[in-house]
Amino acid sequence: MNEIVKGKQSLLFLHAPRIVSASSVVGSKESEGPLRKLFDRAEKDDLFGAQTWEEAESTMQKEACMTALRKAGISAEEIRYLFGGDLLRQGIATSMGVEDFQIPMFGLYGACSTSGEALALAAMSASAGYGRYMMAVTSSHFGSAEKEFRFPLGYANQRPLSAQWTVTGSGAFVVAGADVPPEPESGTKLEPGAPGRNASGGERRFSHVRISGITVGKIVDYGLKDSQNMGACMAPAAMDTISRNFEDMGRSAGYYDRIITGDLGYIGSSILTDLLKGQGHDIRGRHLDCGMTVFDRETQDTHAGGSGCGCAAVTLAAYVLPKIESGEWGRVLFVPTGALMSTVSFNEGASVPGIAHGIVLEHF
Amino acid sequence: MNEIVKGKQSLLFLHAPRIVSASSVVGSKESEGPLRKLFDRAEKDDLFGAQTWEEAESTMQKEACMTALRKAGISAEEIRYLFGGDLLRQGIATSMGVEDFQIPMFGLYGACSTSGEALALAAMSASAGYGRYMMAVTSSHFGSAEKEFRFPLGYANQRPLSAQWTVTGSGAFVVAGADVPPEPESGTKLEPGAPGRNASGGERRFSHVRISGITVGKIVDYGLKDSQNMGACMAPAAMDTISRNFEDMGRSAGYYDRIITGDLGYIGSSILTDLLKGQGHDIRGRHLDCGMTVFDRETQDTHAGGSGCGCAAVTLAAYVLPKIESGEWGRVLFVPTGALMSTVSFNEGASVPGIAHGIVLEHF
Repeated sequence: MNEIVKGKQSLLFLHAPRIVSASSVVGSKESEGPLRKLFDRAEKDDLFGAQTWEEAESTMQKEACMTALRKAGISAEEIRYLFGGDLLRQGIATSMGVEDFQIPMFGLYGACSTSGEALALAAMSASAGYGRYMMAVTSSHFGSAEKEFRFPLGYANQRPLSAQWTVTGSGAFVVAGADVPPEPESGTKLEPGAPGRNASGGERRFSHVRISGITVGKIVDYGLKDSQNMGACMAPAAMDTISRNFEDMGRSAGYYDRIITGDLGYIGSSILTDLLKGQGHDIRGRHLDCGMTVFDRETQDTHAGGSGCGCAAVTLAAYVLPKIESGEWGRVLFVPTGALMSTVSFNEGASVPGIAHGIVLEHF
Repeated sequence: MNEIVKGKQSLLFLHAPRIVSASSVVGSKESEGPLRKLFDRAEKDDLFGAQTWEEAESTMQKEACMTALRKAGISAEEIRYLFGGDLLRQGIATSMGVEDFQIPMFGLYGACSTSGEALALAAMSASAGYGRYMMAVTSSHFGSAEKEFRFPLGYANQRPLSAQWTVTGSGAFVVAGADVPPEPESGTKLEPGAPGRNASGGERRFSHVRISGITVGKIVDYGLKDSQNMGACMAPAAMDTISRNFEDMGRSAGYYDRIITGDLGYIGSSILTDLLKGQGHDIRGRHLDCGMTVFDRETQDTHAGGSGCGCAAVTLAAYVLPKIESGEWGRVLFVPTGALMSTVSFNEGASVPGIAHGIVLEHF
């Protein structure tokens, strides 16, 4: 075995691939939240000009890909492989969303952990030299997710306090091999004021963010069956992946400036802290959850926080990566979490296992 | 760029990974078809002892993984990463099916092309040295698929002649890096008569099958909207991937002993032949379709042929790979095809695009 392979589940890349650009496209509620100034595009019309929620989600995903390409200064033809997924049955938002780009693609399903799964595979492929540029994209939409998993919006059902609010958003990432030069070779010159510019005023193309390793998650099932308390269902998987990352890589919590979970929300995050304490790890002070970051708890009435494939993706793109790029955070363990269920599985009484993938992001 | 990368969509592995074992587990109808003597396990009870079709599919997938591990002479802990998927919403058959193995996993969705997607990623990971052994697994089940996409079985609806019959089956594959020795190191000794033995009498562990390259497919949309004629929807994608494979690798149809599509069935296969002819490629005499191979046209009343994630997987495992192992076929281009749709997308009037992934299998 070569030296890339670490412990039971992790890889530490010898020539770490880089994230050269990231984009975030969100809907109306997200555009009123704490990160409102950081998104590339915040749309007031949650239908994004489309006729259906599904089509809206695809439109959003297409826009996210286009923005990430624009920021990277490359064309769709320069992307070797695309890794993408969403929450809908048969991943239809992704199939319809990325179709126009005509990039060879791998469809994924990892529930809300899909952004981690996509980034892991993009990094593995870029590091192995299977192409210069890879793309990772995920999305979720409040309207399509409620229809898929719960009730039609017009039904106006009540939500328990443990429920989370699916983020309407899509995040896309361009990942490049270590040997790809920091600036686009094609000579595409980007005007500073052009559409798609990050409102935070950051550089379009990242040049200091790399994926130095990954910890691929396994399915963790504590037997919980409450699909309206996904934070609790996913917390054991987050614990498993985080403690596995520490063990595989010979690290402790203190190695990371931030440990960022995807969408455990308030309930799941509190369980995670306790579970990790039981394993001898203290993440307090350095833990952050995208579901708790994307919405304001006091004013936005999202109960236990945000969730969905888009939650971790847009928070990573708009909030986390710029801080790594600037060096404010040197090392981040990004851990999107997913609850593995369908309406059929929970109606049949199956439990809701979780999965979480760990991505080690570093300033260099 | 390194020399692995070929043309626009393909990889040609310098140190080609091997398929060390494959398994096939099928239901009652398949066990009456032409390949009946070749499957590892053919179950008369389509519920596989479970309570629901979904649980039956998971049970089948678990059995397929166990059989592939047994034939490879390794334990689940020796598998570094698992790549798996199925047709059900949120890939639940896979989540519940592989959970017990506790292998770090990547959930996939590529409709009926998923066996190709899983084998491609397993080969990419093994070739890059990300672990000694990878596993690829897919499944489909007639009962769960009819419920997911069409009508409950009790409804006894009529099917148009262009419709295909979803194969109840699961195929699993253990893929190893080129440097992994042909025999298991762990010393697990396999008695010839033990359960899981291939009825064709072949060796348990393959030692002459390698994946020498892949052609990753892109989404191909001819605007067809008839979800009951999936062969026609998928044929353009198969054409695209096959002709792209020829172009990327500088080959023609004659290079391969067989070009094997996943589940185009009778209608799709005839369209494929015509489309490729239009591109200047004649595949007649060397084309074979798993959907036309797994069922008997005259006696089994499956209309346009078999389909489903399991169709290509069990045909590959039970019928194709032993012929490559024996050297009867030296070079095979295996091209599982998928129709990208959901009940929501086709009820909303969306077209049914296709995708196909090409896997180059060689005797060595």
